[in-house]
Amino acid sequence: MTRGVALLPVFAISGALAYAQDADLEARLSALEESVSASASSYVDNSYLFLIGGIIVMLMAAGFLCLEVGLVRSKNAAMQSMKNVLLYSIAGLMFWVVGYNMAYPGESIMGLVGTTPGPWAPPPLDQSHGDYAASSDWFFQMVFVATAASIVSGTVAERVKLWGFLAFTAVLTAFIYPIVVSWEWGGGYLDSEWAFSDFAGSTLVHSVGGWAALMGAIIIGPRTGKYFGKQIHPMPGSNIPLAGLGTFLLWFGWFGFNGASELAAGGIQSINDVAAIFANTNMAAVGGVLAATVTTAVLYKGKVDATMVFNGAIGGLVSITAEPLAPSMGASVLIGAVGGVLVVVSVPLLDKFKIDDVVGAIPAHLVCGIWGTLIVAASYGNHVMPVEIEGELQTSYFGQLVGVLLTGVFVSVASVIVWMALKVTIGIRATEEEEMAGMDVSEVGIEAYPDFTNA
Amino acid sequence: MTRGVALLPVFAISGALAYAQDADLEARLSALEESVSASASSYVDNSYLFLIGGIIVMLMAAGFLCLEVGLVRSKNAAMQSMKNVLLYSIAGLMFWVVGYNMAYPGESIMGLVGTTPGPWAPPPLDQSHGDYAASSDWFFQMVFVATAASIVSGTVAERVKLWGFLAFTAVLTAFIYPIVVSWEWGGGYLDSEWAFSDFAGSTLVHSVGGWAALMGAIIIGPRTGKYFGKQIHPMPGSNIPLAGLGTFLLWFGWFGFNGASELAAGGIQSINDVAAIFANTNMAAVGGVLAATVTTAVLYKGKVDATMVFNGAIGGLVSITAEPLAPSMGASVLIGAVGGVLVVVSVPLLDKFKIDDVVGAIPAHLVCGIWGTLIVAASYGNHVMPVEIEGELQTSYFGQLVGVLLTGVFVSVASVIVWMALKVTIGIRATEEEEMAGMDVSEVGIEAYPDFTNA
Amino acid sequence: MTRGVALLPVFAISGALAYAQDADLEARLSALEESVSASASSYVDNSYLFLIGGIIVMLMAAGFLCLEVGLVRSKNAAMQSMKNVLLYSIAGLMFWVVGYNMAYPGESIMGLVGTTPGPWAPPPLDQSHGDYAASSDWFFQMVFVATAASIVSGTVAERVKLWGFLAFTAVLTAFIYPIVVSWEWGGGYLDSEWAFSDFAGSTLVHSVGGWAALMGAIIIGPRTGKYFGKQIHPMPGSNIPLAGLGTFLLWFGWFGFNGASELAAGGIQSINDVAAIFANTNMAAVGGVLAATVTTAVLYKGKVDATMVFNGAIGGLVSITAEPLAPSMGASVLIGAVGGVLVVVSVPLLDKFKIDDVVGAIPAHLVCGIWGTLIVAASYGNHVMPVEIEGELQTSYFGQLVGVLLTGVFVSVASVIVWMALKVTIGIRATEEEEMAGMDVSEVGIEAYPDFTNA
Repeated sequence: MTRGVALLPVFAISGALAYAQDADLEARLSALEESVSASASSYVDNSYLFLIGGIIVMLMAAGFLCLEVGLVRSKNAAMQSMKNVLLYSIAGLMFWVVGYNMAYPGESIMGLVGTTPGPWAPPPLDQSHGDYAASSDWFFQMVFVATAASIVSGTVAERVKLWGFLAFTAVLTAFIYPIVVSWEWGGGYLDSEWAFSDFAGSTLVHSVGGWAALMGAIIIGPRTGKYFGKQIHPMPGSNIPLAGLGTFLLWFGWFGFNGASELAAGGIQSINDVAAIFANTNMAAVGGVLAATVTTAVLYKGKVDATMVFNGAIGGLVSITAEPLAPSMGASVLIGAVGGVLVVVSVPLLDKFKIDDVVGAIPAHLVCGIWGTLIVAASYGNHVMPVEIEGELQTSYFGQLVGVLLTGVFVSVASVIVWMALKVTIGIRATEEEEMAGMDVSEVGIEAYPDFTNA
Repeated sequence: MTRGVALLPVFAISGALAYAQDADLEARLSALEESVSASASSYVDNSYLFLIGGIIVMLMAAGFLCLEVGLVRSKNAAMQSMKNVLLYSIAGLMFWVVGYNMAYPGESIMGLVGTTPGPWAPPPLDQSHGDYAASSDWFFQMVFVATAASIVSGTVAERVKLWGFLAFTAVLTAFIYPIVVSWEWGGGYLDSEWAFSDFAGSTLVHSVGGWAALMGAIIIGPRTGKYFGKQIHPMPGSNIPLAGLGTFLLWFGWFGFNGASELAAGGIQSINDVAAIFANTNMAAVGGVLAATVTTAVLYKGKVDATMVFNGAIGGLVSITAEPLAPSMGASVLIGAVGGVLVVVSVPLLDKFKIDDVVGAIPAHLVCGIWGTLIVAASYGNHVMPVEIEGELQTSYFGQLVGVLLTGVFVSVASVIVWMALKVTIGIRATEEEEMAGMDVSEVGIEAYPDFTNA
Repeated sequence: MTRGVALLPVFAISGALAYAQDADLEARLSALEESVSASASSYVDNSYLFLIGGIIVMLMAAGFLCLEVGLVRSKNAAMQSMKNVLLYSIAGLMFWVVGYNMAYPGESIMGLVGTTPGPWAPPPLDQSHGDYAASSDWFFQMVFVATAASIVSGTVAERVKLWGFLAFTAVLTAFIYPIVVSWEWGGGYLDSEWAFSDFAGSTLVHSVGGWAALMGAIIIGPRTGKYFGKQIHPMPGSNIPLAGLGTFLLWFGWFGFNGASELAAGGIQSINDVAAIFANTNMAAVGGVLAATVTTAVLYKGKVDATMVFNGAIGGLVSITAEPLAPSMGASVLIGAVGGVLVVVSVPLLDKFKIDDVVGAIPAHLVCGIWGTLIVAASYGNHVMPVEIEGELQTSYFGQLVGVLLTGVFVSVASVIVWMALKVTIGIRATEEEEMAGMDVSEVGIEAYPDFTNA
């Protein structure tokens, strides 16, 4: 097959015509209609949004890798790198095999569980099915489920066993996440009964990952030596610059995460919306960073903990994700700033309960995910309780809370069942000897940094 | 809100019509007009250029992080990572609060200083205001100001105090950079009086950052122990591979930096231009790399200093930024190559004056920024002095020089004032003890690489 | 030049018209025709595909840098970083100077060697020449040649001399790669005589790099101390997390590599195709990762070698590159999975022959490139031998094999000649002393990680 020969004719329209008559006009009009129809510009623009948005969300997997590897100790860094590549792979496989059709079911039981699972396949490629390429939508949805899985990976790092973790990831991405998504983006229970609103997934993606991570942290238990009595033994991350790079990669990917969740870009309103989402998303991250910086400087007498700054960015981004379009730029800064503060104050709170979250994922994704979801109601008339206005159910604080709680209860219960089942079967926790040696030696067989580790 | 339902109808045009009559033709024509109008394809294409260009320029922030962190010593690497996240955040905030409206003022005093600052807000999202989404333009301009701020960060690394640096960044991004931009891209003095030409910011972005960095380096002074008598104590960067990755991330981002500065992509000419800019930008970087490589090999007896190679790429890219469209591909190689040589010969020159530029940002951004700006006149008829041809003022070497000097004088004076004011108030320089301990211990409270630092 | 004024008028169409008459209809039709013609939406969409695809393939250069630097020992990491920046630069220069016109020749001798080499230059920018911007095509083709060159770099790492390697790169990118490309994408011998099919370059890019690397590894010889008698001395990579990041960057870039090789995106069919390629490309990588993981776990008693997981992803991606569109998603998983297994079993095979491939590039790029190319015939009617159906030559297993063998013979012979010529002139192998000291000290003059290397 030769390359360099494009497949579509460009518009070739004779500009000058001698005289106007019906037959001629008709011919020109037909040609133009065909031309416009073939160019399919809004179909292409919408698909581009999914494809470009999708690949930059895919790059968030690299961002999570960098952030998490940077925040674990060097003896677990090879394991953490590998685990992030593996979870992205498993998420993709399971979302194809069963997840997508669970999330967007043809039929469901009371809007709660889809009944038509099975592998997803694209419709014929030579025609349109809706307003964008079907595979571009599948691809975009798939990278979202990978994000949810990445969140768990960071929290349970440094002591989870590889195969146990991968098995949990498979269930999370095949069933747990897709079922929650079906309630809302799939048009199910939360959408129809509560007018629940979650633009790009503060609850559906980030809290889902956060709840699963929280249950994992509790059931697996803290790293050996982390807590003794009331003392907390610090276990500093081994590569802060890599964590900084990861933060920027996540920030970068978030423009796709939120921006492409507009789901269309082929018209003036939709592209204006996408652009406004980009600006708001950036401002919320800015708010998160600066609020976390000031909070940590106040709490720690002028010193600024870099890991808090990085997690402040993530917290701000998660906070705006439920509604990145409606707020003003100033409101976006504030929403993100509250997220940044929440991150800094939640970290010691988890330690108090001896919940060992290695990278601070629970504060950033779960706590900020809840905050971001609740505050959505402020953008839709500040209704405390759901009311109907002109026959349409309104988004409300209570409706948002219902969504948060229902998601929390379901994901927690499901995660506990799966983590416990894995605990009593293939095992989820490394032995103390394995943990002391490091997961790299125990599970990977190679060291992350063999030439320069002193630890 | 459900997901998966797009917002725009696709073109639904009845292809076959039985007979042609005026009423029917009129209806079809109207439908087509609406269709084309709604598809707004060039509006979308232009906005996409800003949005995609914007996010890849945003990724340059990650590139600067990697390059700069790689070139500082390990005891300052956490600080440098954090500082780069913070400066990007402050730049975004200040450019929203005041910078954008200073750079593109409604009214100004003699084209020199805008008089209508204040926060920027997008116009209503349901209609067009010009040829692209307003927020996409804001976003694209915002990532440019962040670039200027990143340049300063590298030069003054390893001894600047965190809060002093952040305060300088705030003033730079709120006022100093926007005022210079208003002279040219805002249609002010340099544009109207001198036909000054700077396509994507060799002077407006890179030299602005470079002058501010130079003043900072002089006022803050060199790192303790760097110079004693005529001897120069080498302080090698701690992570050369990270610097290499940073170089490629910057190179990648530069396609957005220069390409999207075309400001339009919705027509044949404009997309041809964008494509040519991509090719030329790449060739200039190639020229910079290869010229720096040969120069360093000649100077250092066959050995090739990797940091010179990386800075050669940056130097080549900065050199082509003032005019990446008009030169041929061969001319682009040459323009970049001169930049690469300039980088290699400028580094020892700075050392001679005991100006301590930790990452070599002044050679790459300031020296090459000047070179790139002056050589623009070669693409516009080689006029030495400004002349009018057919009523239009021509770009000239002298006019370019005026822009370079005016920018240099203004940014230098403003920077000196700000650096000095900060010096006598909150302080800009760490104590010798803090510096010896490393900024990570002194200001961040955590080490960058706690598991494997020997230093 | 001011900024913020776009160059193209938006559609300004009077929506309401009082009465329909021919003259009026004609005027409206003409305006609309002009509008549609100027908007050139499919021309822009196609060019965007090349430009966006091109820059993300460009980022694969950063991915190779990370992967290769992570897999060499720390004493060679600065050299490896620098070499990757240099080879990308040389590839760009040579492909401009001679390569592009060799790959897509106006005239050729029997479809084998073009006879009109010379520098490439874009046609006038104010008009269209085909269905996309010419420079966008040049740019996209250029980043492909850089990919081929990157493959060689990893295999011969840690003992090749800098200038010898760069000289080889120049010949590879100016002549060897372009000549092979001309046979197929340039419409030459393999395309016309054998209906050889290689969508995005399993053979044309990856095998070409692989054969050149294999010949280099043989001629340069293994690293000192790697093999003694039947024993293999492991020389573990020094930065596994960086290799993990590199894997994700390559995976990311592959969406451009395969997706943009559709060469068009401006219509429903073409954008559907691009989207399906994205999904299939991801699934093949998933298959490669998971198959390599299971294989390595079985072979190494439960431990999973991270480097095999990473190379499994690359192997899966290379395998699907020859035909990423026609297979179903499930078939893509399988094609990639076979690639992942091939990687794991090929690594020890090379060691058996004492062929020292530092990063495992030959298994991933050459072995999987051959596999991916052969299996293409399964997507085109499973013809064993080439047959004509309705006057058109069909893709067949034998035809694919001919392409694989012809490429292998030509690239191997050419590479041997060039490597040998360099060996007897400027030299390609460092002395044992230089090698022991590390290439960083010997050739670069700076260390990659001066603060924390123990080795």
